[in-house]
Amino acid sequence: MTSPEPSPEAKANASSDAKTNTAPDASSDANTPADLIITRCTALVHDDHEQIDFLEDATIVVRGGRIEAVTTERLDLPATERIDARGRLAMPGLVNCHTHAPMVTLRGIAEDLPVEEWFNDVIWPIESNLTERDVELGARLACAEMIRGGVTCFADHYFSMDTVAAVTAESGMRANLGQAFFSSQGTEGREQSLDFALRHRDTADGRITTSLAPHAPYTVDDADLAATARLAREHGLLVHIHASENRDQAETSLARHGRTPIEILADTGLLDTDVLIAHGTGIIERDLPVLARATGRVGVASAPRGYLKFAWPTTTPVRALRELGISVGLATDGAASNSSLDVWDSMALTALVQKSTGGDPRWLTARQALHHATLQSARAVGLGQEIGSLAPGRRADIILVDLTGPHTQPVHDLAATLVHSARSSDVRTTIVDGRVLMRDRELLTLDVPGVVRELNERMPALIDRSHGRKIQEYDT
Amino acid sequence: MTSPEPSPEAKANASSDAKTNTAPDASSDANTPADLIITRCTALVHDDHEQIDFLEDATIVVRGGRIEAVTTERLDLPATERIDARGRLAMPGLVNCHTHAPMVTLRGIAEDLPVEEWFNDVIWPIESNLTERDVELGARLACAEMIRGGVTCFADHYFSMDTVAAVTAESGMRANLGQAFFSSQGTEGREQSLDFALRHRDTADGRITTSLAPHAPYTVDDADLAATARLAREHGLLVHIHASENRDQAETSLARHGRTPIEILADTGLLDTDVLIAHGTGIIERDLPVLARATGRVGVASAPRGYLKFAWPTTTPVRALRELGISVGLATDGAASNSSLDVWDSMALTALVQKSTGGDPRWLTARQALHHATLQSARAVGLGQEIGSLAPGRRADIILVDLTGPHTQPVHDLAATLVHSARSSDVRTTIVDGRVLMRDRELLTLDVPGVVRELNERMPALIDRSHGRKIQEYDT
Repeated sequence: MTSPEPSPEAKANASSDAKTNTAPDASSDANTPADLIITRCTALVHDDHEQIDFLEDATIVVRGGRIEAVTTERLDLPATERIDARGRLAMPGLVNCHTHAPMVTLRGIAEDLPVEEWFNDVIWPIESNLTERDVELGARLACAEMIRGGVTCFADHYFSMDTVAAVTAESGMRANLGQAFFSSQGTEGREQSLDFALRHRDTADGRITTSLAPHAPYTVDDADLAATARLAREHGLLVHIHASENRDQAETSLARHGRTPIEILADTGLLDTDVLIAHGTGIIERDLPVLARATGRVGVASAPRGYLKFAWPTTTPVRALRELGISVGLATDGAASNSSLDVWDSMALTALVQKSTGGDPRWLTARQALHHATLQSARAVGLGQEIGSLAPGRRADIILVDLTGPHTQPVHDLAATLVHSARSSDVRTTIVDGRVLMRDRELLTLDVPGVVRELNERMPALIDRSHGRKIQEYDT
Repeated sequence: MTSPEPSPEAKANASSDAKTNTAPDASSDANTPADLIITRCTALVHDDHEQIDFLEDATIVVRGGRIEAVTTERLDLPATERIDARGRLAMPGLVNCHTHAPMVTLRGIAEDLPVEEWFNDVIWPIESNLTERDVELGARLACAEMIRGGVTCFADHYFSMDTVAAVTAESGMRANLGQAFFSSQGTEGREQSLDFALRHRDTADGRITTSLAPHAPYTVDDADLAATARLAREHGLLVHIHASENRDQAETSLARHGRTPIEILADTGLLDTDVLIAHGTGIIERDLPVLARATGRVGVASAPRGYLKFAWPTTTPVRALRELGISVGLATDGAASNSSLDVWDSMALTALVQKSTGGDPRWLTARQALHHATLQSARAVGLGQEIGSLAPGRRADIILVDLTGPHTQPVHDLAATLVHSARSSDVRTTIVDGRVLMRDRELLTLDVPGVVRELNERMPALIDRSHGRKIQEYDT
């Protein structure tokens, strides 16, 4: 990154040692205009060993919602849309691997509390008031926040998911969505979760994929979990579930059932399906061989800020999980606990907290953090073949990051600059499936002031706890 | 914060229950124009017990570089400059209580290393190349980064401080500056540190104050420390020193000298001067009664991101220090270790890391974090009477923070929104001594692209380590 200032002119000198990655069928389209060409960026790519590499002065060609080429050759191709990205770094859009998007409505309402009080005294009583409209407004606000923070895809686990699906479609984002259920709902919860998953899979031009979403082993019984595993295998669906969220849950589970939450997942067949485990800070030594025997694809979503905030004694055991080959994706959880949907922050904190808890400043490195943010996050949400890399054939989910700010200069090590110096606010442009959702910080698909105005009008009814109801009791 | 959108019109209705804080001599000036009036902001103020409070729809009047009034009355005063701050929160500018500003030149050059290798293999060899021009460019870049992040004052401890003082003056920032020295320089280092402190104190229209700056007890011997303490008392200067930076230093000091670094400060008289201790993550139980007996004003600067990054086993023991009444100010350290000069991030991380290391989600709260960021930080750098609060008579060091972004909405608890949801990039306007240094993200006193261009040209000479020199050996 020598010249930090973007300038409008582009030179057309072809470099003799140019690198090109081109999709196999690209040449057939060479005479029709590309949908989008991004020029003169620095491109974050992965080499054949999945190591992070950077191509200087690169061009990215997008056609039909997919990346057709990433090259340092100067191409003289026609294109419907062009972005001059000098001074910008192009990288795969971030993936929020576990969130409850509509909970942004409750951001900051239950602060400085242990998780039991947070759930039982504030969040679950308030959630008994939730209306479709609250969920809709919350999801819009969440999508706006995520697009501004460079998040192009999120895995959501919540209620009223038809509404979240509609907002996802309207926002232009990609998502894996699951309708949460508890066994306290009888079989109806599970049936609705399946119904949702089947109705919405591959909708929004393929941007929406779906999961079955049992809440957690402490709120969903073994029979329901086993039935969920069977349904997931039958229908080829991912299962997205909270498990071993914290050490207390693991210990209570051992005391009550003689099994850890991870062992319950194994016993009920969920580790023989593709499963996305949220948090896992309570994963202990005896869980590791259990996870190693999983025949399904296991991913874990880690949201480290919330663990610090709740003062949990441990964080996700990323190093141990990596040694098993498990993908650990980055997440924020809902903003009611985490205060934000800032996945960039999760990336930096993952590096910092892993160094600190492991007592080893060499692990995890900035490049490893970027691997978590890209390929591992894509795999964790079941989209390992589709997103997570700027490579020909992948969906064109791309963000452009400004590296000209004083806080990101000079650049000695681009990976370190990205992870430890850049911030989510440095994302200037967010693109999903080749469509620009934010251009130079301007949101193109969502109206934030309108959403905030209506949300504030509805707030007194939403946060009323005088009725004494709650949707569930937190008692692991 | 009900209406997030700023609009240009201002109504002039005086509220009947308006609150006003006015400087005693303000009425005499009522007919001459104020220098600056900020209208319709939410103002972060402190009540008589130093609790954080928020005044809605407030007006701030600035005259002669000081705050004259903070009021919810609608004033109809003439003013040279007006800022309509609807949708913005006004708060005291942040203070970076311990940094080495020019080290931004080395941001990211020594990553994922233990502190010994970081010092001995990279930083101290490179610092033997430092020229005045490198320091000047680094200081400019650092000031730009800090102003953009809402930092109005910094305590700097480095070399070539005449140059840093000149850049501070030019940038418009406030700073407490100290010329670092080691005993390996003989008495000359200490003499230069004193000479610097006396020549520069109260310069730049009073915005520059100074410290004596011995590096640390492991690089400055007892005789030098004792002489420093005598000079500090004689000249009424603060002493700014690294001490007990980490647990290893405390243990090595005990093994070598039978005393902890804090006990060395006590024995050499430094705790009977006003002293600013950087880091203190190695402060242990036996140090607490020593600190309690200090007759000088002791402050500690905490830069938690760096401690995580170096995988130090402990962080600054903020709770124990608070129980002794010691001010713990927020800091970043230099960007070569911390990757950024983002004090906002230090505020959030202090809350998170204190909860996590103390195992108590209730401590420290968002309001406590704001107390550290304001009054405690001001006191730590010796400016407890001058800055740190939006109160009549204090210097007009004010930042305006945008709270209309989707990531800071809705607002249920403004303190939590500020600490856990807002980011340094939400600072729109930065004011020091009533002078606007950044307006709506535009820097008014510094040229970032010019600095970056020259810095990159100079970089090969700066980072050359082929000579085999280093300025010091890290061996605690």
